[in-house]
Amino acid sequence: MTTISSVALPSWNDGATRSAIIDFVARVAKQGSADYVPPSERIATFDNDGTLWSEQPLQVQVYFLADRIKQLAAKDPSIPQRQPFKAFVEHDFKTLMSLGKQAAAELFFATHAGMSEDEFAEIGRAWFASAKHPKYGCAFTQVAFKPQLELLDYLRKNGFKTYIVTGGGVDFVRLICEQSYGIPREQVIGSSVKLRVEMRDGCSMLMKTPELGSFDDREVKVQNIGLHIGRRPILAFGNSDGDLAMLRYVKSGAGARLALLLQHDDDAREVAYDREFMLSPLAEALDKATEYGITVVSMKRDWKVVFG
Amino acid sequence: MTTISSVALPSWNDGATRSAIIDFVARVAKQGSADYVPPSERIATFDNDGTLWSEQPLQVQVYFLADRIKQLAAKDPSIPQRQPFKAFVEHDFKTLMSLGKQAAAELFFATHAGMSEDEFAEIGRAWFASAKHPKYGCAFTQVAFKPQLELLDYLRKNGFKTYIVTGGGVDFVRLICEQSYGIPREQVIGSSVKLRVEMRDGCSMLMKTPELGSFDDREVKVQNIGLHIGRRPILAFGNSDGDLAMLRYVKSGAGARLALLLQHDDDAREVAYDREFMLSPLAEALDKATEYGITVVSMKRDWKVVFG
Repeated sequence: MTTISSVALPSWNDGATRSAIIDFVARVAKQGSADYVPPSERIATFDNDGTLWSEQPLQVQVYFLADRIKQLAAKDPSIPQRQPFKAFVEHDFKTLMSLGKQAAAELFFATHAGMSEDEFAEIGRAWFASAKHPKYGCAFTQVAFKPQLELLDYLRKNGFKTYIVTGGGVDFVRLICEQSYGIPREQVIGSSVKLRVEMRDGCSMLMKTPELGSFDDREVKVQNIGLHIGRRPILAFGNSDGDLAMLRYVKSGAGARLALLLQHDDDAREVAYDREFMLSPLAEALDKATEYGITVVSMKRDWKVVFG
Repeated sequence: MTTISSVALPSWNDGATRSAIIDFVARVAKQGSADYVPPSERIATFDNDGTLWSEQPLQVQVYFLADRIKQLAAKDPSIPQRQPFKAFVEHDFKTLMSLGKQAAAELFFATHAGMSEDEFAEIGRAWFASAKHPKYGCAFTQVAFKPQLELLDYLRKNGFKTYIVTGGGVDFVRLICEQSYGIPREQVIGSSVKLRVEMRDGCSMLMKTPELGSFDDREVKVQNIGLHIGRRPILAFGNSDGDLAMLRYVKSGAGARLALLLQHDDDAREVAYDREFMLSPLAEALDKATEYGITVVSMKRDWKVVFG
């Protein structure tokens, strides 16, 4: 006999994790259930890098950034002589990290500043259309995790509104959120630069400034959920200590809640890493998962396939 | 013969304005039309005070603020002795305005700070449930304009996503957006204080700080549309110079666009005011409406009824 739960999430292996997800969704979505949650409150927030798509060996936006710096250096050769660009082009990530996480973020933003939102979108779309992932040899959008695409879809079919809450640049992720994840641009929250309104030939346009607006990591993810969504999600999914504040915020609400943490423990199909990943380590969240009621998802154990 | 357009917007009088709205919606929503816009891009943004509900004699949030100050003064009698509270309780709006628009906004926020989002929601909901509008004697949510409720609904039925972009406090408007306007909390953009994550008894909660996050007025409305929505709306509706930047931004995009400006010219049914309203004047937008391609909506001429 084929039941709904046996056809749901086909790329997830049977087991405690898949059951926990399916049971949770059934409890909150079923009218008359003690844990019923009205559709308007069914908000699910997902981290992006390492949660929805692969972030190894480097995050997708880092490759975009490297190509942008090459383009900029072609016009101004002094750029790769200056920090933090110098450390970046020399792959000297130790120096880059010593400059601070926010400095690293500013490096991202410096390569975007002075452009209108439309100009940035054009550059970004052209890059996504042509660039290839150095490890997998496919388009960068193809490194999304198939089980997660199924989960996003499954949640939406059960009345959830799905959001991305990413440390990556909001404009960058908004370039691909619709075709890759089925998530509209307005449901992406991320790191951002401040915007400025400018009139050009009588037309009003938004320009990206080099000033940091928000670095959407750790507690800031929660603050931005408050600002953008204005309600506490009932499900969140992350993969690093940068997501821990969001997972705890979700678990702190009344009623049924599900917080999920993806552990990359599959060297054969993707990568095995957690504590040692300099750009976005997973340590505290893993140590405290049981105490905080967070469900750890093992890529190796819980996923039948990794990529589509 | 009853046509669709004759039953749409029943509280709007037949005439150029109603026709302009209906024609615009038909053009962007009809597959195969030269001006067709896919549903994902059908974003409409509405100002709130004076556009969706009455802002006279004072904006709804000012009444809430006055009652909050009374509550606070009962605990700390020095509060009404200090500026800007002093000017406020003495209805000395001239002094209040001389303290600057941002100072006035801070007055709003000072009465919210140090509370969690849940505590604020509780106070606000209790107020909306009991307070009465001094002029109309009804609940404050009843001063919404019926033609605008029909318009919001009409747009949604034609695949639009409707947003509020208000100078008022985002948390305040989020208390009533769903039942009053059919707009979910996450589709309200407004003025905001910075939030802080705090742990209380092992529970993570968002606290409102006294620090201004964003004063959502004029160009900032456009910047916040970029941050929250990430696409240019195709329709916007405002009623003051504080909305002009948003209207121009909408009109500056390619393809069919509609920018609407409500003129309060109906002393018999509501109020006749524009240039002289200290809190939110309408002057430049009215003078430049023709030049900028903005459609002026006359309450007196275009609305069959004002309130529900």
